[in-house]
Amino acid sequence: MVLFLHSADQKIEAKRLLVEAGLEHKFVGPTLVEVSGEKSVWRPEALARWLSPVGRLEGLQSSTPLIDGRSQCSVTISRPGSPIVVAVGHSPLWIAGPCSIDDSTDLLALSKRIASLGFQVLRGGALKPRTSPHQFQGVGRNGYRSLAEAAHGAGLACVSEAYSEDDVEEAAEYLDLIQVGARNMQNFALLKKLAKVRKPVLLKRAPGATLWEWASAAEYLVHGGNDQVILCERGVRGLEREMRYTLDLVGAVFMQQRFGLPVVVDPSHGTGTKEVMSACTAGALAMGCSGIMLETHPEPVNAQSDGLQALTLDQLASIAQTYIRK
Amino acid sequence: MVLFLHSADQKIEAKRLLVEAGLEHKFVGPTLVEVSGEKSVWRPEALARWLSPVGRLEGLQSSTPLIDGRSQCSVTISRPGSPIVVAVGHSPLWIAGPCSIDDSTDLLALSKRIASLGFQVLRGGALKPRTSPHQFQGVGRNGYRSLAEAAHGAGLACVSEAYSEDDVEEAAEYLDLIQVGARNMQNFALLKKLAKVRKPVLLKRAPGATLWEWASAAEYLVHGGNDQVILCERGVRGLEREMRYTLDLVGAVFMQQRFGLPVVVDPSHGTGTKEVMSACTAGALAMGCSGIMLETHPEPVNAQSDGLQALTLDQLASIAQTYIRK
Amino acid sequence: MVLFLHSADQKIEAKRLLVEAGLEHKFVGPTLVEVSGEKSVWRPEALARWLSPVGRLEGLQSSTPLIDGRSQCSVTISRPGSPIVVAVGHSPLWIAGPCSIDDSTDLLALSKRIASLGFQVLRGGALKPRTSPHQFQGVGRNGYRSLAEAAHGAGLACVSEAYSEDDVEEAAEYLDLIQVGARNMQNFALLKKLAKVRKPVLLKRAPGATLWEWASAAEYLVHGGNDQVILCERGVRGLEREMRYTLDLVGAVFMQQRFGLPVVVDPSHGTGTKEVMSACTAGALAMGCSGIMLETHPEPVNAQSDGLQALTLDQLASIAQTYIRK
Amino acid sequence: MVLFLHSADQKIEAKRLLVEAGLEHKFVGPTLVEVSGEKSVWRPEALARWLSPVGRLEGLQSSTPLIDGRSQCSVTISRPGSPIVVAVGHSPLWIAGPCSIDDSTDLLALSKRIASLGFQVLRGGALKPRTSPHQFQGVGRNGYRSLAEAAHGAGLACVSEAYSEDDVEEAAEYLDLIQVGARNMQNFALLKKLAKVRKPVLLKRAPGATLWEWASAAEYLVHGGNDQVILCERGVRGLEREMRYTLDLVGAVFMQQRFGLPVVVDPSHGTGTKEVMSACTAGALAMGCSGIMLETHPEPVNAQSDGLQALTLDQLASIAQTYIRK
Repeated sequence: MVLFLHSADQKIEAKRLLVEAGLEHKFVGPTLVEVSGEKSVWRPEALARWLSPVGRLEGLQSSTPLIDGRSQCSVTISRPGSPIVVAVGHSPLWIAGPCSIDDSTDLLALSKRIASLGFQVLRGGALKPRTSPHQFQGVGRNGYRSLAEAAHGAGLACVSEAYSEDDVEEAAEYLDLIQVGARNMQNFALLKKLAKVRKPVLLKRAPGATLWEWASAAEYLVHGGNDQVILCERGVRGLEREMRYTLDLVGAVFMQQRFGLPVVVDPSHGTGTKEVMSACTAGALAMGCSGIMLETHPEPVNAQSDGLQALTLDQLASIAQTYIRK
Repeated sequence: MVLFLHSADQKIEAKRLLVEAGLEHKFVGPTLVEVSGEKSVWRPEALARWLSPVGRLEGLQSSTPLIDGRSQCSVTISRPGSPIVVAVGHSPLWIAGPCSIDDSTDLLALSKRIASLGFQVLRGGALKPRTSPHQFQGVGRNGYRSLAEAAHGAGLACVSEAYSEDDVEEAAEYLDLIQVGARNMQNFALLKKLAKVRKPVLLKRAPGATLWEWASAAEYLVHGGNDQVILCERGVRGLEREMRYTLDLVGAVFMQQRFGLPVVVDPSHGTGTKEVMSACTAGALAMGCSGIMLETHPEPVNAQSDGLQALTLDQLASIAQTYIRK
Repeated sequence: MVLFLHSADQKIEAKRLLVEAGLEHKFVGPTLVEVSGEKSVWRPEALARWLSPVGRLEGLQSSTPLIDGRSQCSVTISRPGSPIVVAVGHSPLWIAGPCSIDDSTDLLALSKRIASLGFQVLRGGALKPRTSPHQFQGVGRNGYRSLAEAAHGAGLACVSEAYSEDDVEEAAEYLDLIQVGARNMQNFALLKKLAKVRKPVLLKRAPGATLWEWASAAEYLVHGGNDQVILCERGVRGLEREMRYTLDLVGAVFMQQRFGLPVVVDPSHGTGTKEVMSACTAGALAMGCSGIMLETHPEPVNAQSDGLQALTLDQLASIAQTYIRK
Repeated sequence: MVLFLHSADQKIEAKRLLVEAGLEHKFVGPTLVEVSGEKSVWRPEALARWLSPVGRLEGLQSSTPLIDGRSQCSVTISRPGSPIVVAVGHSPLWIAGPCSIDDSTDLLALSKRIASLGFQVLRGGALKPRTSPHQFQGVGRNGYRSLAEAAHGAGLACVSEAYSEDDVEEAAEYLDLIQVGARNMQNFALLKKLAKVRKPVLLKRAPGATLWEWASAAEYLVHGGNDQVILCERGVRGLEREMRYTLDLVGAVFMQQRFGLPVVVDPSHGTGTKEVMSACTAGALAMGCSGIMLETHPEPVNAQSDGLQALTLDQLASIAQTYIRK
């Protein structure tokens, strides 16, 4: 962006405003300043307003005008009894459940246990996008119905992933919140179909995606007609060797501040390390994130997927007792 | 993996074989060696054979048994006149064309010009997965037919991207080679549909994907019934700031050596920098890569997408004259 | 590592213990299991103890035996009046000050203001390792003395960077805590000299360093004779574009749990974004990190370096009032 | 940078010039264009010249004015008999030798063998910066003399690493080319000392460094008085798991084109994988890189460091016979 100073006399005041806001800039002429808007949590129009005493800011075109332009986003998830409202600044959303649904688990019993701990949403994968085709691929779309029955039977809402464009219709019928998996964050054909349904969407961040690409994926949903979007941070890929991914908690905060979109943090996938789950939950809550999603399994040793990172119910209960305010 | 030595006397010989092969290892008992197979271009059975004089290797289970188990992969692309055979060690595949098809371009004239330079395949996006919904999204599936007509009219094969699962049928009808875009590399629903068609697939690497994830995506295609797979390296995301991505030429070589799958290199997307296109082409060919894909446009300044990285026809001709052996 | 089961009957119990601990593993023989220790917060001997009911773990050799073998690390920083004790689980260490010392600032006044807010340590760069030789390089080693006088005059300890091996002697004379900068994390010649002095060291993480490399740098200090080591997380380099770096809070927690070394978090360098400083402070404290280091400047607009990320004294006061428990 | 158009009529011609050069830009006013110079191989003054027909470019300040301003850099390495001239476009520099010198090797015999294959420089580490203090740290500075005697006795030049500031004097006395290791790329105290000696420097890229940081490190040497700088690309850190690092061949090309500094490619450290050494050598040469550095050891199994990636003399001979033009 370029800032046109009202007059050359305002150089010093302009400098002060730019530094105070932490904005990268370069004076390129007596009344001209290049301003880098990228590395800022400021919305374009907020930037323009802040700098208006000293000059006129041009080049504000955003690639995400819709989510930029809305005031704070509030998402409503239906649930037996009362709906859940999710928004930045509200009380956090608590989600727990197994990575994938399998026949061996008594889902209703699990759901009741999870509800008793204070969670509001049951998660469970019916269709699992797995790196290798030789890994367990999930029980299929029928699982949506089983999941919903178990969740609703315990007074919970439910969330599961729509994996194929063909899943969308059934997902919208049974689920209260539809997840877009990390690998599908930029599957725009899927996003366009989900933009047409009247259910909220939980949009996971791809581990190789910038914050801007993530925001743009949310923009696809809003642009297509669905403004009920919750983001989910589940780790980015970088240097990490010891941890499964690098959980980008500051990125989550950035998305909440910049776009007003609520962000749920998933430390289970984001770290793959049980010993840090409690610390991550504490950190995400303290930083104002809008929710926590944890993987659990009654018997992790028998889980069909990701058993290593699934908390036992006792471990889950311990976290719930520490952090959930009923 | 664990290597069980035939006897403790063979420790020295085992050490020699392991070092010679560049294999990471750790002696954990008098007759027991941990071997890390991950950082190696060796297929599991080749590893076992190499180490067989000194011991028995266990824990060979591969997550990509199908592409591991095949001998070298040869892919046939249909073309007016004679088909094109693509395989590691064969003469390289040459692909060129605009990023996206738009109405302003005389596609047949462009195709004839590209053919005259020695290219065998015309590329062109009918449907464009763009980061933002406000960017040009392509002319739609009708574009497949226009592209095919222009290509075939000039004696070329054609390649374009199938973006949605719903595109697959029409893509298979018109195209000679179907591209899976980088953002869809792990769109397993799409891969499973493409596994059922009788057309070869060009599988782009996601910029955040490890080599193993890329191989596993190819495994999905083979597992589903389509063994006609060509890979396409188009840059990974890392430290780079000056370049658009980091073109991973060594990764391309790894995939060819490890799995026998042909890899086409796309320096246009991989670097976004015209000044290095010729050097990248030279490097990829010298390293034995199985093909080159270049973006061109008759008037880059009027291109609907990625005009900045599109070569003019003169720039393209210059590269063709230097590197294509007719 | 390899786990030798006492008998094949214990396979199920071994599986249970491994899954419960979140340890990656592969059964390679009837009584043999490969265990990957890398992706775990467990110390080798703790792993061996946990698995001892079912088998014997071999291959435990650590590359950091000294910091592995110590019980929890407690670091003492001298200060006028009473020393400060820093350790995992203790009350956090609070550090603030300007990025670099320059002549224009009344350092004693600043120091008193910082002390009044509840901070214990004054930071300030006398020698600044800057990316370009044309940037301000600091006031020189004389700055150590000025910094110490200002800090001690206000009852604070002081920390500054030793940049060259030649700085070590003077740094040890004047400073209470000697910083190793991110760019020098693997400057082993410098580490070896710092290992010989009787002052604690604040070891910043290089933005391109794995957790293991960071731990190994700490091992150099301990190996050379100085076990008074505090780590400092200041952001890793990855996908980030909007933020200056990706602040790795989970990595900080890993280092505290795995090695017992206290970690101070520096959100100023780690994010470069004023708007998230308060959230980062809250998160780091909630996650149990051992300290916070913040950059401040009485007039950021006149700072010689990093003015954009320096908090004003009012902004610093606001964070202090919220989080420092006096 | 900002481009001030001479008149609003030149908008179309300006657009054409910007697209043709692949320059990112945004029109922010009728006669004003923001131009991003970062993602370009163009030097600032070349950019200004290219755009001068349509307007005036401002904001050209470079952080590397010295290496920007020089015409092509030519480096002279002394050698018994005749010196070696290294420059972009000249015949490539060939370097080989063991990772580290140890007592068990007959260095003169090795040197003669390497010379007979056509290499011009013997490499060998006297002091080894190793990740862990428990790894072999090298034979010490005496090794410089042994290395020089062995190299010169075979008619070769020699290169080794100066690891500590205290090494510089002796390094300058015995070595023909002084290496700055990857971990010390931003050890500015070391760079400043090396800027004062009259020997050329081989500046390795840190695996976490951007191209700009690498260039700025070279700028330190030139700024301090030593313009005899050769760069060495040895792999960056990113997604890679299978390979040790990601060898950034395009980055090497960028540095040669942008700054005119010769770049030597080190596939041994850059990949850690013997099977791709030949392909990397072929690629680097085809891309115009100014040299190749390969690790070899008469008996890799007995090497004190990095034996896994060291080529046997037969493997080295095979590469030499294919690629070195005598």
